[in-house]
Amino acid sequence: MTSSDRIKNAFLRSKIMTAEDAASLIQSGNTVGMSGFTGSGYPKALPPALAERIEAAHDAGEKFKINLWTGASTGPELDGALSKSDAIEYRLPYNSDPVGREKINRGEIDYLDMHLSHVAPMVWEGFFGKLDVAVIEVTGVNEDGSLIPATSVGNNKTWIDCAEKVILEVNSWHDERLLGMHDIYYGTALPPNRVPIPMVSADARIGQPTFRCDPHKVAGVIVTDLPDRNAPFSPIDDTSRTIAAHLMEFLQHEVKMGRLTNRLLPLQSGVGNVANAVLDGLKDTPFHDLKAYTEVLQDGMMDLLDSGQLLTASSTAFSLSPEAAVRFRENLDFYRDKVILRPTEISNHPEVIRRLGCISMNGMIEADIYGNVNSSLVMGSRIMNGIGGSGDFARNSFISIFVSPSVAKGGKISTIVPQASHVDHITQDVQVLVTEQGLADLRGLAPKKRAQTIIKNCAHPDYRPMLEDYFARAMRDSYGLQTPSLPSEALSWHQRFIDTGSMRPRAPRASDK
Amino acid sequence: MTSSDRIKNAFLRSKIMTAEDAASLIQSGNTVGMSGFTGSGYPKALPPALAERIEAAHDAGEKFKINLWTGASTGPELDGALSKSDAIEYRLPYNSDPVGREKINRGEIDYLDMHLSHVAPMVWEGFFGKLDVAVIEVTGVNEDGSLIPATSVGNNKTWIDCAEKVILEVNSWHDERLLGMHDIYYGTALPPNRVPIPMVSADARIGQPTFRCDPHKVAGVIVTDLPDRNAPFSPIDDTSRTIAAHLMEFLQHEVKMGRLTNRLLPLQSGVGNVANAVLDGLKDTPFHDLKAYTEVLQDGMMDLLDSGQLLTASSTAFSLSPEAAVRFRENLDFYRDKVILRPTEISNHPEVIRRLGCISMNGMIEADIYGNVNSSLVMGSRIMNGIGGSGDFARNSFISIFVSPSVAKGGKISTIVPQASHVDHITQDVQVLVTEQGLADLRGLAPKKRAQTIIKNCAHPDYRPMLEDYFARAMRDSYGLQTPSLPSEALSWHQRFIDTGSMRPRAPRASDK
Ligand SMILES: CC(C)(COP(=O)(O)OP(=O)(O)OC[C@H]1O[C@@H](n2cnc3c(N)ncnc32)[C@H](O)[C@@H]1OP(=O)(O)O)[C@@H](O)C(=O)NCCC(=O)NCCS
Ligand SMILES: CC(C)(COP(=O)(O)OP(=O)(O)OC[C@H]1O[C@@H](n2cnc3c(N)ncnc32)[C@H](O)[C@@H]1OP(=O)(O)O)[C@@H](O)C(=O)NCCC(=O)NCCS
Repeated sequence: MTSSDRIKNAFLRSKIMTAEDAASLIQSGNTVGMSGFTGSGYPKALPPALAERIEAAHDAGEKFKINLWTGASTGPELDGALSKSDAIEYRLPYNSDPVGREKINRGEIDYLDMHLSHVAPMVWEGFFGKLDVAVIEVTGVNEDGSLIPATSVGNNKTWIDCAEKVILEVNSWHDERLLGMHDIYYGTALPPNRVPIPMVSADARIGQPTFRCDPHKVAGVIVTDLPDRNAPFSPIDDTSRTIAAHLMEFLQHEVKMGRLTNRLLPLQSGVGNVANAVLDGLKDTPFHDLKAYTEVLQDGMMDLLDSGQLLTASSTAFSLSPEAAVRFRENLDFYRDKVILRPTEISNHPEVIRRLGCISMNGMIEADIYGNVNSSLVMGSRIMNGIGGSGDFARNSFISIFVSPSVAKGGKISTIVPQASHVDHITQDVQVLVTEQGLADLRGLAPKKRAQTIIKNCAHPDYRPMLEDYFARAMRDSYGLQTPSLPSEALSWHQRFIDTGSMRPRAPRASDK
Repeated sequence: MTSSDRIKNAFLRSKIMTAEDAASLIQSGNTVGMSGFTGSGYPKALPPALAERIEAAHDAGEKFKINLWTGASTGPELDGALSKSDAIEYRLPYNSDPVGREKINRGEIDYLDMHLSHVAPMVWEGFFGKLDVAVIEVTGVNEDGSLIPATSVGNNKTWIDCAEKVILEVNSWHDERLLGMHDIYYGTALPPNRVPIPMVSADARIGQPTFRCDPHKVAGVIVTDLPDRNAPFSPIDDTSRTIAAHLMEFLQHEVKMGRLTNRLLPLQSGVGNVANAVLDGLKDTPFHDLKAYTEVLQDGMMDLLDSGQLLTASSTAFSLSPEAAVRFRENLDFYRDKVILRPTEISNHPEVIRRLGCISMNGMIEADIYGNVNSSLVMGSRIMNGIGGSGDFARNSFISIFVSPSVAKGGKISTIVPQASHVDHITQDVQVLVTEQGLADLRGLAPKKRAQTIIKNCAHPDYRPMLEDYFARAMRDSYGLQTPSLPSEALSWHQRFIDTGSMRPRAPRASDK
């Protein structure tokens, strides 16, 4: 079956064109909303063609840049290609592409790192101006012109609704059995007309399986047969295993105390290696009949579905390693009624997350002794990825857990620091911190007790005495004693890393005497 | 009419006792949940009696301390008296009492500063342990034992439901016509049993006018006739007037752009002088038929109700100056159907705030050049009040606005700083910043543009060149250029204030040469 057979609507079939022709519909200065969330469901043909076109323009001495909006991160053919060609003026709401990251950190791309739950509403509210073009990858087009979503939903509904023109990539690489796995909710509105989102369980379906799309807005259709490209996860190492073990012990304790049952509450697990590894730790626990209400469905979630421990998983995108993606396709009939893909607006909606009472587990860059968490900016200025949906979950979950090894870069960086160099999650949004050293249950603790607990339970032994020393001196010399701190020293570890490549105190030199 | 006539239930009338006797029901180590939200509706007889009892115990060399939970801040007879007597071991979720503040900042009270929307759910979830005693001020008791709330609702429903025993203060100072102004929602539950909160407009009523209370839990009833004691607001000065004018111009611009209508969206206005003054600025605008969905109802809201510009106001408490409180009582029949008091859990619920699309306007301590806001900790360590409900509103509102004079303490402090010494509201939660210098509309701006806009529009001219210089050097020397920063210098203004009493660079001295 070729891709064009996937286009059951005759009018839309008449719009088939090459990626090059479609790319020529995009002008310099345009704001373009593309599909894609992690390496799933992003357009794969138009972006490289557009990148080529833009490179040619640049070679001819012309200025050509676009503003790029997506669901979240995408694949190398999209963010990679466009970043490499200096095609992006402005980017929202998330990036994890290495080339894009490098250009952002050199100040060459303006990057607005957003709460993912804010994106669709704020676009509707008109805060970011007009969306010129939507470029959306889909699995197929129905006779009535409705669109079968692909492996991610992200902001596609909003892009299709808001854009002046729409370009579709119909990708026959996607399995047609995806039809029915999506739940596209059309009940959102602008205030004062908003109503409750009628979701009362993580696996409820409140929408429809396809996107509506006015065919007259469709300016072009590209047929493709190209694979999603998600990065593999790092193998699960001892550090991650120990982190997971601490967390599982904690959850079992919560069951013992009667605050949870062995069915737990809907699980959210963040992006990254550590969050993925934590899921693996669920395997050897008495927890059963679990549900996930999460943003991305990683390998760890698939394994839990396979074993039957996880009954259903709701997310906005697959974020599977290449191996897991093959496994998913091979067993799609098994997963069909267990997986629900929703618009990010719903997967990350504070209303729903608070109602369901998620257990959220996210990775972090660093936490300070008061439990403020930095998820995004290394040394306070260099972007790693972005806040993504971590804020949507952390503030609204039943319990918000952050996980990280206690050191990074072979021990040169302590992930527990006197003061976070940037804050994504304020102390009020962090109930539990876990490193391989141990777990800090911060619920109910006032700041100084938080500090003592975090230093004792989570800090690496190499840095623990330094943190104890800082805290003791802050207790003595701080301006106020609610959260004792020494502003002249609070960020000195970061400065030392920048200056010397390590947060460790430099060895005394002869000249110090 | 004396207070005991206010107790229509015979069984509860039989429980009348003195404040001293009631105070003796509280033991050292108890966790006590008291009513009160700002200087409204807090118990006024038991706390001073308890303070006396505790002082006597201390004089006799006995340890006697309690853990104190409330709705938010309270009055001098409660937080003031208990703080003065060193009666408080642990305090949540908010304090603005000067004696309490002083003890917290000396490290003598453990203070957990919380999102107000988190308090009731987390208590229900069992995260803070058992509540021994609830002490609740009410306006009266109905024949069926239900309780007529007073001038604040706060966490009273939760305290009454969760506490092992309940002590009531029936205060005949409160006007009986308060009956019917409250909307106590009994539809909350623990996950997985939570359902949508059926509120679709700011003035909807979804609950009942009174509290349910098992009479057998009531251990004592005190009759009182004592006034609420709210602090007066500072007179509205030119600085506040200018801030308000900038904000009104902005809102009118939003109407012109079609993003709002002249009815705006439900207004939230924070605690403090500046937020109150901003409301005054609404007077001379074309905005009409307004509604408020806010946490506290200050003088400014009353004025707008009086003029008819504001149709209805929903809040969890009155926060009126003594003059406005008199005015309220004199015209209670006018206000009765215009004011709704709700549990804080509902007034501050992210689900409802996001659905209604509030326009939130809150005061701040400082903001940094990227728009991270500090609402609570002076110089990063000395508590002013707390985050209160500002985070509930800032993250979930249609638009989140923070207001402050550009300098504090006679110009010795710049409220725009290179890096916030503490973060309550992350850059993603701050869309507009206003000082008397101007307004920064940050929507859609990536960090470096945010910095330029904030420095240019909001910083005081005395500090603007210093900020420009910092930003320029950060652009040159920063580790990454997503949010250029210099960790060794980012908090140096705070350190200089601590060292010299001013953020201004000290004048060069002879010894500097
Ligand atoms: C914070 C985050 C980067 C951690 O990712 P992870 O894969 O679990 O963690 P790792 O330990 O493998 O670290 C990833 C990288 O960050 C680096 N890193 C981690 N902590 C660091 C620190 N304190 N300083 C500098 N670098 C650090 C690691 O060295 C590694 O770098 P490398 O790729 O060059 O080897 C990731 O969770 C993230 O981007 N979070 C923000 C978005 C989010 O939470 N989304 C969830 C949405 S629901
Ligand atoms: C931030 C907050 C203290 C501002 O209050 P305000 O009354 O509007 O502002 P003012 O300018 O009158 O300042 C209040 C005090 O803070 C001081 N202050 C303000 N900014 C300061 C700064 N950057 N550094 C040091 N002190 C500062 C003022 O000097 C003043 O002190 P004083 O009482 O000794 O004179 C107040 O809004 C608050 O507590 N907010 C947090 C809770 C909240 O937002 N709740 C809303 C819930 S919905």
